[in-house]
Amino acid sequence: MTHNDTTPPPSGGPASAPEMNWYAWGDPERATSLDPGLRDLVSQTLNAELRDMPPVPEEQVELPPSRLTEHLREALVAVVGAEHVRTDDAVRLRRSGGKSTPDLLLRRAGKADSAPDAVVLPADHDQVQRLLEVCSAERIAVVPFGGGTSVVGGVTPVRDGFSAVITLDLRRLDRLVSFDPVSLTAVLEAGVRGPRAEELLSARGYTLGHLPQSHEYASIGGYAATRSSGQASSGYGRFEDMVVSLRAATPHGTMELGGAPASAAGPDLRQLFLGSEGTLGVITEVKLRVRELPERTLDEAWSFPDWATGTTALRELAQSDTRPTMARVLDETETFVGAAMAGQEATPGCQAVLGFEGRGEEVEARAAAVREVMIAAGGTPHGPAPVAHWRKNRFSSPYLRDTLLSAGILAETLETATNWTDLQSLYTAVRDALTEALEGDEGGVVVMCHVSHTYPTGASLYFTVATAAGADPWARWDRAKRAASDAIVAHGGTISHHHAVGADHRPWMVEEVGPLGGDVLRAVKATLDPEGVLNPGKLIPSPTR
Amino acid sequence: MTHNDTTPPPSGGPASAPEMNWYAWGDPERATSLDPGLRDLVSQTLNAELRDMPPVPEEQVELPPSRLTEHLREALVAVVGAEHVRTDDAVRLRRSGGKSTPDLLLRRAGKADSAPDAVVLPADHDQVQRLLEVCSAERIAVVPFGGGTSVVGGVTPVRDGFSAVITLDLRRLDRLVSFDPVSLTAVLEAGVRGPRAEELLSARGYTLGHLPQSHEYASIGGYAATRSSGQASSGYGRFEDMVVSLRAATPHGTMELGGAPASAAGPDLRQLFLGSEGTLGVITEVKLRVRELPERTLDEAWSFPDWATGTTALRELAQSDTRPTMARVLDETETFVGAAMAGQEATPGCQAVLGFEGRGEEVEARAAAVREVMIAAGGTPHGPAPVAHWRKNRFSSPYLRDTLLSAGILAETLETATNWTDLQSLYTAVRDALTEALEGDEGGVVVMCHVSHTYPTGASLYFTVATAAGADPWARWDRAKRAASDAIVAHGGTISHHHAVGADHRPWMVEEVGPLGGDVLRAVKATLDPEGVLNPGKLIPSPTR
Repeated sequence: MTHNDTTPPPSGGPASAPEMNWYAWGDPERATSLDPGLRDLVSQTLNAELRDMPPVPEEQVELPPSRLTEHLREALVAVVGAEHVRTDDAVRLRRSGGKSTPDLLLRRAGKADSAPDAVVLPADHDQVQRLLEVCSAERIAVVPFGGGTSVVGGVTPVRDGFSAVITLDLRRLDRLVSFDPVSLTAVLEAGVRGPRAEELLSARGYTLGHLPQSHEYASIGGYAATRSSGQASSGYGRFEDMVVSLRAATPHGTMELGGAPASAAGPDLRQLFLGSEGTLGVITEVKLRVRELPERTLDEAWSFPDWATGTTALRELAQSDTRPTMARVLDETETFVGAAMAGQEATPGCQAVLGFEGRGEEVEARAAAVREVMIAAGGTPHGPAPVAHWRKNRFSSPYLRDTLLSAGILAETLETATNWTDLQSLYTAVRDALTEALEGDEGGVVVMCHVSHTYPTGASLYFTVATAAGADPWARWDRAKRAASDAIVAHGGTISHHHAVGADHRPWMVEEVGPLGGDVLRAVKATLDPEGVLNPGKLIPSPTR
Repeated sequence: MTHNDTTPPPSGGPASAPEMNWYAWGDPERATSLDPGLRDLVSQTLNAELRDMPPVPEEQVELPPSRLTEHLREALVAVVGAEHVRTDDAVRLRRSGGKSTPDLLLRRAGKADSAPDAVVLPADHDQVQRLLEVCSAERIAVVPFGGGTSVVGGVTPVRDGFSAVITLDLRRLDRLVSFDPVSLTAVLEAGVRGPRAEELLSARGYTLGHLPQSHEYASIGGYAATRSSGQASSGYGRFEDMVVSLRAATPHGTMELGGAPASAAGPDLRQLFLGSEGTLGVITEVKLRVRELPERTLDEAWSFPDWATGTTALRELAQSDTRPTMARVLDETETFVGAAMAGQEATPGCQAVLGFEGRGEEVEARAAAVREVMIAAGGTPHGPAPVAHWRKNRFSSPYLRDTLLSAGILAETLETATNWTDLQSLYTAVRDALTEALEGDEGGVVVMCHVSHTYPTGASLYFTVATAAGADPWARWDRAKRAASDAIVAHGGTISHHHAVGADHRPWMVEEVGPLGGDVLRAVKATLDPEGVLNPGKLIPSPTR
């Protein structure tokens, strides 16, 4: 692919975070084109004609003119300064949505109706607080924006019913505010990106240990606002587990929640902001638990005769006292495809991947204890080598997805979680729903799945779907996604284990929390954001009665 | 003490839970009187004359007449049947408050103005749901009641502004609804008491591992509604960590929250009900994570030269990968007093107590790893024997408190938590505040403290205070408690680590969640309980603006 773009990012703080490709994930320099041989193989496998789907040139993208009136601009400039209220097209285009396949299909076709009227870059919490007061008073919708990595429509601006819509880009909130080596906590501002957080902490000998696939671009505030879960969640926990306290700006004032390591002082209100996706307030600072950098990392690949045996082995580990830091098991299809992509011989059956991090001897002892459980559960060890490819490419799958998309192949993911007892029936139901929705005149479909987050009571399921783009790829994926979401809630899964809700999962939120849960969410929002300016159209379900 | 009482409990389900002494903690048969020699020693230590404070005979307690009108009674009877709407004095008296020293001082003096107008005993969730609808329509205040173990005024009926107040005794909701040995979860009804829960689970080979001091009487619903924390929380986690999902009745309908092992589908609304103390709804069923019964238990007592060294050792354990199941460290005073009470020779400095539970070899390996940390931190091992006394008496301290109270000695506890960095300054501030409030003309005071719950980022502090009752014991303790609470919030502690808020800590809730947090709590309550009938006067702070 040659549609690289080098528009400089909006001037941020001293450590400006990188800007992503406008029509694809990540660094424009890392975009690649698909090997013709592989393309033929995919075409054959999917039994479909593939057509090239290059993006339109950036200058052909139709951006609506900014509707920010001079009055509104002045009100925003009064808070952040003129240079931090950006209305140029390049900046607006790059805030017109997230990075789901539907988002990218629109951008590639030159559609950016959802571009915000302005991108505003506050310097600190107080500016965020004042901006929210201004926006509430002027009925300007506000989309908080960290890394812009949402794959659920979480950062798509919605203008309807408002005087304007702005994207609140938090990249200037990029400081390590404080570090406490006794209590092992760090206060980070919301705009700090994943790699920068690790850089700041590792200089002191510590890590968050939070590495989701979005790590290279995602922000601390985004992690908190979406209940992110990293690839090593078995050892380090989910992001919400690391949050000791948080600070959030709302149109009605600032909230400071949490602090004690544990408390019985009423409901835990932090848990309203964790996962709130910018609809209740803007998280500006988070105090996080940190851990010592591991002395030692030990990887081990395993194979199991089949998916049922492999998932049972991971269950036994999750329910034991001695756990790996990272544990994944791939179904037969993903095992086969993964090996093919890596140029390796596929292990028979299902592959599992374990990782251990910690102090030297402790890691060895833990790995030895786990090895016993895995062998008793029917596993065969294959050493560390097969894991190396995964480690090397752990953040690259979105690039591959975009490469495939340019070659006319939809390759998208979706995910859920449930208890161990219902895991297999949920797996089958979602796979069947995706297959039924996509298989037909436009070709076949490959559905694969892995478990990558395990808990004592259950696990996540992460599906990857590959199919020909077809005549109307947006509608084609939309149909499949709806079918999968219906199957998820019908079979007791959560509508999202770590991608969050955004606009895309919002129709299923009533199943998630019930009509009364929807009332509660709306009541909280009405208290903090009475004008409803905070990230409209996301998360909060519409009334059903 | 001879004021035993054998009034039978209200007829409940097949496994009627025990009823507590009306003026004291626990089983009337287990009440004892203070050894005269010990009494003299305490009198000398406190430099105070002690006066006997026996309770008035039960027949002398002034109970206000029930104000339940015939109309209201009929409405309640229509839901639960006549035999489950109790208005007899013995039953009402035993629901007139919890088990704090102030509660008991009132009862002992024959005061029970707060007795509910009726005690209503629903059979199941649906009856609770219908009762709440009736009570909301008729403006009857409702106090949910599990074991009645609150020490923060959490179950004291408040009638003001309502047509009547009832106590909703949940003892008939006493079933194990379902058990899932694959996902390791159990659904228990809210009225199941601690020992009964363990009986039901241990018959299947499992345990909750949740053993707070209130265990012998506390209920599953109470644990959830107050964010209880058990003595082995280092290994088993706090009660809220065990809750997979919950069911709650509210005047506006039933909520079912949670289910997946983890979710990114918005704010975690379970966390509003956990710690809600009956103000937002009545928790009727909880799905809990269970664990295999331990094969092996290993105890070890340690000593440290001083409190600072001992707490640092526990911090190092909490921040390491290898942790005990239970960890406590006592300050110098509590070490000395504890040994004296046990008839043991006091270890010099501070005593620490560790417990390990799990599979045989795993326990041994973990204990060995912990031993290294403890020795490096300056600890001296003293073997298992000193722990045996603690294990034997772990649920008995409230009996001793009441024995002392009859002998004219206030012996009450309070607790908080903070990060490790601020732990020593908080410890000193609370101790000083208690000493200043209590030391004077009426005698001296002994303040002692232990850490019994540790986390990577901080720990709890549990204070025990002993002082002469003085001329007006209620006012004397009230003054001390206020001073301690002010010191706690001024020094960054949470107003409660595991006792909850109730009426007693409510004045400090604004410091805990901020004025806007108070607005959020009131908005949630207004949505679920628009008439405000649910446990009025507890938890939810009054508006401050």
